Amino acid sequence: MPSDPSAADLAKRYRVDDGASFRLADFDPDDTWKLEKEGSKDLLAASIARLSELQERLYAQDQWSVLCVFQAMDAAGKDGAIKHVMSGINPQGCQVYSFKAPSAEELDHDYLWRCVKCLPERGRIGIFNRSYYEETLVVRVHPEFLRKQHLPPSLVTDSIWEHRFQDIRSFERHLARNGTVVLKFFLHVSRKEQRKRFLERLEDPEKNWKFELGDVRERGFWDEYQRAYEDMIRNTSAKHAPWFVVPADNKWFTRLVVADAIISALDSLELEYPTVDPAQREELAKAHEALLAEKGK
Amino acid sequence: MPSDPSAADLAKRYRVDDGASFRLADFDPDDTWKLEKEGSKDLLAASIARLSELQERLYAQDQWSVLCVFQAMDAAGKDGAIKHVMSGINPQGCQVYSFKAPSAEELDHDYLWRCVKCLPERGRIGIFNRSYYEETLVVRVHPEFLRKQHLPPSLVTDSIWEHRFQDIRSFERHLARNGTVVLKFFLHVSRKEQRKRFLERLEDPEKNWKFELGDVRERGFWDEYQRAYEDMIRNTSAKHAPWFVVPADNKWFTRLVVADAIISALDSLELEYPTVDPAQREELAKAHEALLAEKGK
Repeated sequence: MPSDPSAADLAKRYRVDDGASFRLADFDPDDTWKLEKEGSKDLLAASIARLSELQERLYAQDQWSVLCVFQAMDAAGKDGAIKHVMSGINPQGCQVYSFKAPSAEELDHDYLWRCVKCLPERGRIGIFNRSYYEETLVVRVHPEFLRKQHLPPSLVTDSIWEHRFQDIRSFERHLARNGTVVLKFFLHVSRKEQRKRFLERLEDPEKNWKFELGDVRERGFWDEYQRAYEDMIRNTSAKHAPWFVVPADNKWFTRLVVADAIISALDSLELEYPTVDPAQREELAKAHEALLAEKGK
Repeated sequence: MPSDPSAADLAKRYRVDDGASFRLADFDPDDTWKLEKEGSKDLLAASIARLSELQERLYAQDQWSVLCVFQAMDAAGKDGAIKHVMSGINPQGCQVYSFKAPSAEELDHDYLWRCVKCLPERGRIGIFNRSYYEETLVVRVHPEFLRKQHLPPSLVTDSIWEHRFQDIRSFERHLARNGTVVLKFFLHVSRKEQRKRFLERLEDPEKNWKFELGDVRERGFWDEYQRAYEDMIRNTSAKHAPWFVVPADNKWFTRLVVADAIISALDSLELEYPTVDPAQREELAKAHEALLAEKGK
């Protein structure tokens, strides 16, 4: 078992940056590569320490931002992955937004609007727990939700999903061109594992609060959702905004992959602490002197 | 003199919806077509009444929104046009945002971000007094402003303006696809007329407050700005997001053209008050009856 999953390019195995020939069936939700649960805690702890260090530099340099988008079927482990991967990070440099059913004000704007408002500032990591991709998932599987958007009927054409994919691609390209690194995670859970986790939520009183009746209803649309996810990944994968199809039947493995993907992206930015030029150095020296001189007063 | 400029397609004469062969030199800032100042007040009053009526329907129907972007050299009459054309409108259906120098929080996001936040809701007219186009104008003429954006240096390439035009085109296409009618006004004032208006601001104590020293400094970059406007219009004119190159040496004429452009756009939407279906009609009849029955109580 390798001691450093990053060195082994763990996340790269699940990275899709050209969707042309993507098939969801090629990815196994139960895959754990050659890692084992035993020892995974230490690996994750090492990853989090590395992530924390990189995030400090991202913040200090204040040029790039990172947007991590999480999408998945219910009980695939989004909340857990966010919690366990990001918990070591300074919250000042990390902003998490969860997007639920849109409000009336949000429905009165285009579907990107509410997410744009929450984009991370330079120097920060922004986490979207669900996102504008819901438009291509729940709204696509349940087209009646489109009606709630009050779109002019003449604009709801057969090309609407193609247009939405095109607009999302353009939007993410714009973000990338302006310094936001976009990383997208699809936590790929199997139907069987979802059933097991739903049953746990029903049978364990401490997990009851996580269970919503609507979740089982959506489970009834499993195949439609899988097709929607596949089409989404086919249409919106790009070098500057890759999807990671993360095996999600084993939570410990999901977290290692997510952490490694973010670390690799930050590593590739070659982040450095801002350097001080000679003029600034002189100013610092003066400030230093002044502080030392205070001693006798 | 025609009594109804709308019937004469006044604004159409200044509309650019394909920029490929656009030349600013083909447009005369002093043009007033065949209209005269005398009588223009009555024409504008009629236009405002019509606009007010259409805006009520826009609001009631609650499907489309209208975004009017105003760009111009200083003293071209943006504020006056907004004031005189929109003053008859119910302010509940109209939102005006003026974009000045960006704040630190705004600079920590991409250049579209602060404008996206202010996009009009369905059923409303949004007015941008300056906009994201400043990126292709003041920032282009003074590239040192780019540095303030803290962009990663590797992203500031020779293609940056081409990319910005491409991203703005995609952004406006996305808006159009989701029910926002985008109308863009360049108030085209001559160098000579700007001088005259600056002098008035300096010589008339009541207008002193409008004068800023920086305005004269920017006047020194006149040719650079004209080239930037021309390039902007060439690169971002589209059927779904036209530019209107509005002659601005005569304020009364500017206002007639702007009003006519918005009226024509609203007219083409064929706005109707929402209709009531038979089931709703029955509900209304019951409510009506109940109210009448209260009489004796």
